[in-house]
Amino acid sequence: MKVVTVVAPVNIAVIKYWGKRDEELILPINDSISGTLSTDHMCAKTTIQASPLFQENRFWLNGKPQDFDNPRLNNCLKEVKRRAKPSCPILNWKLSICSENNFPTAAGLASSAAGYACLVSALAQLYEIDGDISSIARRGSGSACRSVYGGWVQWVKGESPTGEDSLAVQLAPASHWPEMRVIILVVSNETKKYSSTSGMKTSVETSQLLPYRAKEIVPKQVERMKRAIADKDFEAFARITMEDSNSFHAMCLDTFPPCVYMNDISHAIVDVVHTYNQLKSSNKVSYTFDAGPNACLYLLESEVEEFLSVINYVFPPRSGSIQDEYIKGSKVKQLPIQEELSRKFEFKVHKEGALKYIIYTKLGDGPKVLTDEKDHLLTQEGIPK
Amino acid sequence: MKVVTVVAPVNIAVIKYWGKRDEELILPINDSISGTLSTDHMCAKTTIQASPLFQENRFWLNGKPQDFDNPRLNNCLKEVKRRAKPSCPILNWKLSICSENNFPTAAGLASSAAGYACLVSALAQLYEIDGDISSIARRGSGSACRSVYGGWVQWVKGESPTGEDSLAVQLAPASHWPEMRVIILVVSNETKKYSSTSGMKTSVETSQLLPYRAKEIVPKQVERMKRAIADKDFEAFARITMEDSNSFHAMCLDTFPPCVYMNDISHAIVDVVHTYNQLKSSNKVSYTFDAGPNACLYLLESEVEEFLSVINYVFPPRSGSIQDEYIKGSKVKQLPIQEELSRKFEFKVHKEGALKYIIYTKLGDGPKVLTDEKDHLLTQEGIPK
Repeated sequence: MKVVTVVAPVNIAVIKYWGKRDEELILPINDSISGTLSTDHMCAKTTIQASPLFQENRFWLNGKPQDFDNPRLNNCLKEVKRRAKPSCPILNWKLSICSENNFPTAAGLASSAAGYACLVSALAQLYEIDGDISSIARRGSGSACRSVYGGWVQWVKGESPTGEDSLAVQLAPASHWPEMRVIILVVSNETKKYSSTSGMKTSVETSQLLPYRAKEIVPKQVERMKRAIADKDFEAFARITMEDSNSFHAMCLDTFPPCVYMNDISHAIVDVVHTYNQLKSSNKVSYTFDAGPNACLYLLESEVEEFLSVINYVFPPRSGSIQDEYIKGSKVKQLPIQEELSRKFEFKVHKEGALKYIIYTKLGDGPKVLTDEKDHLLTQEGIPK
Repeated sequence: MKVVTVVAPVNIAVIKYWGKRDEELILPINDSISGTLSTDHMCAKTTIQASPLFQENRFWLNGKPQDFDNPRLNNCLKEVKRRAKPSCPILNWKLSICSENNFPTAAGLASSAAGYACLVSALAQLYEIDGDISSIARRGSGSACRSVYGGWVQWVKGESPTGEDSLAVQLAPASHWPEMRVIILVVSNETKKYSSTSGMKTSVETSQLLPYRAKEIVPKQVERMKRAIADKDFEAFARITMEDSNSFHAMCLDTFPPCVYMNDISHAIVDVVHTYNQLKSSNKVSYTFDAGPNACLYLLESEVEEFLSVINYVFPPRSGSIQDEYIKGSKVKQLPIQEELSRKFEFKVHKEGALKYIIYTKLGDGPKVLTDEKDHLLTQEGIPK
């Protein structure tokens, strides 16, 4: 019997992946760049157990049994086994896999990225394979390849039709820009209406703008973003991040039928960020939205308390909500908004509870193997604890 | 003393105008196409009175006195006078101008287009000028040039830096496609947040996608649209109309900061239209959104009753609302939704009153001179009645 447990991080793209040139191999039409979040507050966790005694492969996700016959899972498994040494003694053992996310699944919070990065990291550990595994994680979920590394990560789209050069590279570790923070404003934890997989497929088929974005706009923005990260130039970083988020959602809208991920509250958050930046006469906060209504804000630590005071003013928490439950993640001092700011801030104050909750976190490292037995999600018999 | 009263129509673009190449001359970066609505239900009305006894130029809009010193108004006035015969006896008389819209101003319902088409038509009548006046109306508000003609109208962007070839041409009169109907779903009659003038200026300055739309996408869509109108091919007409509306709002979103005109209710209408078309296995209804949240639907008369039954089902009117006030414009039979349709229609039913009201109308002719004295908006003394 052999057992491995791994935790893997979520990543939040600042240059978005949208559109595949190969559906089967999951090859993108453009490069993308993301920050990998600390696993302290948000992560996927996967235990894989292999045993000669198991009669069948089994898979649980968030406590529910899943069909093992999932093509993405099997593509990852097949590729890891292909790279294992032929002498690996457990190649024919059956597996029990148990995976969990500690954040809402399929709410546009990149749960599949963390999940597949976790699965592939655990499989790589189990079958003792070496070398880059990001191109394997990519076969599970495109953006999963970026969660294989910590810090700032670029997914290079590659040129080869077989996809071997479509992989993630680390641009800088999290420690390169230690002041960087991330605030996630959870607008809705309902399952989203359009899956990103089918949304991007329809975009590739119908958007007349998407090929131009992929070919002409993104390559320039990727170079600018790499420079902004290397130089720790927050002003430029913030501008490019917001521009690319808007450009990505413009592609979604240009799809037929359109796929609309942002809602009125999302757009109200955009307004708050622009107004705040205008008051500060520079880009102090940047937003980015994935395929869902939640806002991910990148900002420096020095700005966190004041900006949160604005968010709590414009989007008051439901009365009676407990601070530690409403603002999850790292501890943060909650200040009332400064009078001058609220006076200048000519903004509609929203109804209580427009935001479900807030996560405050920062960048972190890639997947980690957990060796303490109590961390395993499976019993000795390969059943969820 | 000389007095002229004119009514002029609203037009609803099916290929949108967005972006000027010359701010002063109001020259667009791309061609646009619109349908001119009947003046029966929505119009601007303007009375202009000239008198040697008037001491000063005066101007009222919707009952409120305005500053006559408005550059757009004066550009139009100057250009009309330039084209008048030098022998015209009233060239030096002062003017009283009174203008009214019978629909919400600045709510994204193209009030300035009808208003300037009306003003310029009345001035042309007053000073007895001949020839095309669309390029003069254009100086008041770009899309006003299209309201100078009835039916289907193309605004040709032109090439000249002086703008003399940037004018409207009629593609077909309203009678060419007599079955065509228009339903306007008024989502909000609040004044919009971003004016279209400043929105399109910011788009030109910041959107990386807009030049591509103007240069590569719109010219193809214009040709397709002209063919669809000539052939009365509703399937194609509807598809191009919806694609162009989405593409235009994608440009707005790609602007920095983004200008967002559609809201959650607008997007819910888009969903209803696509679902309805899917159930019918063809494009029976098409939507288009201007710089505001209201939906303009183009559809054939044969589809009106059934589609309205769906709209009333998904967006129930506020209880107690009077049908003739809720559905303005042409008379229409209101049917309950067919059971089969409501069963297949797996749609969230919205709260009562999500739509403020509905206008049901059709295409019509260009500006009309009214000669009955009771139609004048001004007294003999040049004061609003």
